[in-house]
Amino acid sequence: MTSANQAFLTDFTSMSSIGATDGGGVDRQAATVADGQNRNWFRGLVEGLGFSVRYDSVGNQYALLELVPGAPWIAVGSHLDSQPLGGRFDGAYGVLAGAHAAKRAQAAMANATDPAQFNIVVINWFNEEGCRFKPSMMGSSVYTGKITAAQALDTTDPDGVTVREALEAIGTIGDFELSVAAYVEIHIEQGRSLEDSAISIGLVESTWGANKYEFVVNGDQAHTGATIIADRQDALLGASALVVAAREIALKHSTAEHMVITSCGEFNVFPNSPVVVASRVNLLVDVRSTDPDVLAAADADLHARVEEIEKMANVRIERGAEHAWGAKSYDQAGLRLAGEAADSLGLSHGVVRTLAGHDSTNMKDIVPTIMLFVPSVEGISHNERELTRNEDMVAGVELLSEVLLRIVNGEFVSASDTTQDLITESTVDA
Amino acid sequence: MTSANQAFLTDFTSMSSIGATDGGGVDRQAATVADGQNRNWFRGLVEGLGFSVRYDSVGNQYALLELVPGAPWIAVGSHLDSQPLGGRFDGAYGVLAGAHAAKRAQAAMANATDPAQFNIVVINWFNEEGCRFKPSMMGSSVYTGKITAAQALDTTDPDGVTVREALEAIGTIGDFELSVAAYVEIHIEQGRSLEDSAISIGLVESTWGANKYEFVVNGDQAHTGATIIADRQDALLGASALVVAAREIALKHSTAEHMVITSCGEFNVFPNSPVVVASRVNLLVDVRSTDPDVLAAADADLHARVEEIEKMANVRIERGAEHAWGAKSYDQAGLRLAGEAADSLGLSHGVVRTLAGHDSTNMKDIVPTIMLFVPSVEGISHNERELTRNEDMVAGVELLSEVLLRIVNGEFVSASDTTQDLITESTVDA
Repeated sequence: MTSANQAFLTDFTSMSSIGATDGGGVDRQAATVADGQNRNWFRGLVEGLGFSVRYDSVGNQYALLELVPGAPWIAVGSHLDSQPLGGRFDGAYGVLAGAHAAKRAQAAMANATDPAQFNIVVINWFNEEGCRFKPSMMGSSVYTGKITAAQALDTTDPDGVTVREALEAIGTIGDFELSVAAYVEIHIEQGRSLEDSAISIGLVESTWGANKYEFVVNGDQAHTGATIIADRQDALLGASALVVAAREIALKHSTAEHMVITSCGEFNVFPNSPVVVASRVNLLVDVRSTDPDVLAAADADLHARVEEIEKMANVRIERGAEHAWGAKSYDQAGLRLAGEAADSLGLSHGVVRTLAGHDSTNMKDIVPTIMLFVPSVEGISHNERELTRNEDMVAGVELLSEVLLRIVNGEFVSASDTTQDLITESTVDA
Repeated sequence: MTSANQAFLTDFTSMSSIGATDGGGVDRQAATVADGQNRNWFRGLVEGLGFSVRYDSVGNQYALLELVPGAPWIAVGSHLDSQPLGGRFDGAYGVLAGAHAAKRAQAAMANATDPAQFNIVVINWFNEEGCRFKPSMMGSSVYTGKITAAQALDTTDPDGVTVREALEAIGTIGDFELSVAAYVEIHIEQGRSLEDSAISIGLVESTWGANKYEFVVNGDQAHTGATIIADRQDALLGASALVVAAREIALKHSTAEHMVITSCGEFNVFPNSPVVVASRVNLLVDVRSTDPDVLAAADADLHARVEEIEKMANVRIERGAEHAWGAKSYDQAGLRLAGEAADSLGLSHGVVRTLAGHDSTNMKDIVPTIMLFVPSVEGISHNERELTRNEDMVAGVELLSEVLLRIVNGEFVSASDTTQDLITESTVDA
């Protein structure tokens, strides 16, 4: 293994000790103490390598590596926050890989005849996971104008702490602003298609479409030990039937060509006492598919089932917040560039779709974007046992370096087409 | 309305302000600040009426009214703790009714030719509800030897606070001990059979049989946005299917003669994050019936369904703690005595069964026990809208007074058959 790759693995091991859990994962939820420790660790690392670090108004962290003063910026990034009892690779791998790849591209340019056409910024997007503060992909959603900074900052966690308060508590908020000309992200696959086909690199061609719903099932509180069935309006029964229905819909609507995946990850019961029929359950249900028509059919079925469940459990089901994105393609030129870069390094690659949302899902809507995957062992993710092998991690860093090098050389987007961006210097972040 | 009944209602209104909720109910969960306030309020009230108050080692509160020094004791009681957002009648009515009835029986005996054969103790049983600390009916379960004091005291709430710590914090724990010769309890029905048949008083002839289970559904944590259905071991799906199955079992096994009721009141999902397939759900399921054979058939069906659900959701379901009681009868002589007392007052009455557990469910296993119900409007209970009308409350106090009077006169149990009980004076309760 090259010393550069060994250095990457050493840094990765070091980062993985921050917020480490007993089961071999990490717990670094957004803007917690552990997330703050990790952000500062990363800042220390990259400042030592010649980057300068800034924060924007919603806590996105920018590590700036200037190759050519005044040139426009190319971004590479992912997120350092994790799920509770999450894996140590999800997001964190991509941010660290971005920093190493940027340095390698810088070193390669030092020997080049022509100067670089772009500078490189590594972005650690705030709160991609969305477990402490909803919605997920919060930092990149603000950056791409999908939600406002004020909405994000006023969001509260279950204890009533706002994003603003939490970011101020860990001291990683500022007023930096930066436009970028293109975006690259590398991430673990979190599925097992690469492993199953023994391929090193996934080139992401599109996202799945997804409809996400927040349902509120309203029943009436009653005594479990005294209320006969006919008198019950059992919110827990209604919500449970909805979870079961969601799975049935996934199985019913999946075809050989287009899979449907339904999920429910959060489910809160009130008052949740052993002898009380629940008065209310709040739950999140999402429906995803690679095909818009299949998704629409599954979605219609879900809403028909909601009406049936209302009658069966004698409850009223409200649909609260919702959030949808269509199946969308990544940049085709980017897909070709990444494939050629992989070929040049002798890395096997294949085209994949991403079922999960990533910050690149947002970024691809505003700038040309490339998304790369490295394999996950057994597809296990959001789990302390999440694993990407060392050889796959370093292959990803090598590919990312090559992709960045090609981009700063003007092979993806043109510097002359890009508005010269002003960097607003941060005044409050230290 | 008599001034005595008016005094009862005034005291009831005063007590209902302690731990009052915006919705007209109370939140006085066991050994919380509000429960402590109410215990002290009750102590102040009854000490002013000539009772003396003691606590035993698990926080049961004894209000002693001595009619004849050295005579054995008859207990009347219920519980002052409530559900979160509970009603103001459940339990609290019975304790206050007991104190008023004891005073009325004492006053009636002052005019009697023969002296009383018993003294009267009003017992406020600790933690009948079981919402903060499980199991329910904790104080009477220790008193009747079903669990040990040590087990009860070491039980923790969701924040890790033990019963011992919580009782010490509100200062209502001691070392008092007292044996009693008989027990009487009056309670709101929490169902609507009395209201539906326009009857004032329910004479409880038996409890329903109940099997209560704590299930742990074990899946595997995974990313909702990246894990295909075939790879999921979704604990939330398994637990939801179990909730739905429980309802199906109730409907399937209920007959015209014997109803089956199934419930799930507590349901906790881990890690409960919006984008994570749940790794574990802990839930409580109970199955109740008036008939032991019907109960056994429903129970067998539930366990068969557990195995099916394990396969369907690819999860492993463990059965944790369980707790069962058979359908059992109350004392037949007590039923007759209460019916005659009601007749003497011109109160309509009927025989009912109790679906819910009460402290009398425990007490009837060790001493002759009488259980009385007053109507609940629309059967609503464990709900802030729980209501028992003033006229029904005062009718109940009048009947309870008459029943107690007959018991202290030796019409239920014989004082000579009763071991002379020593009162161990409390040393640590203040």
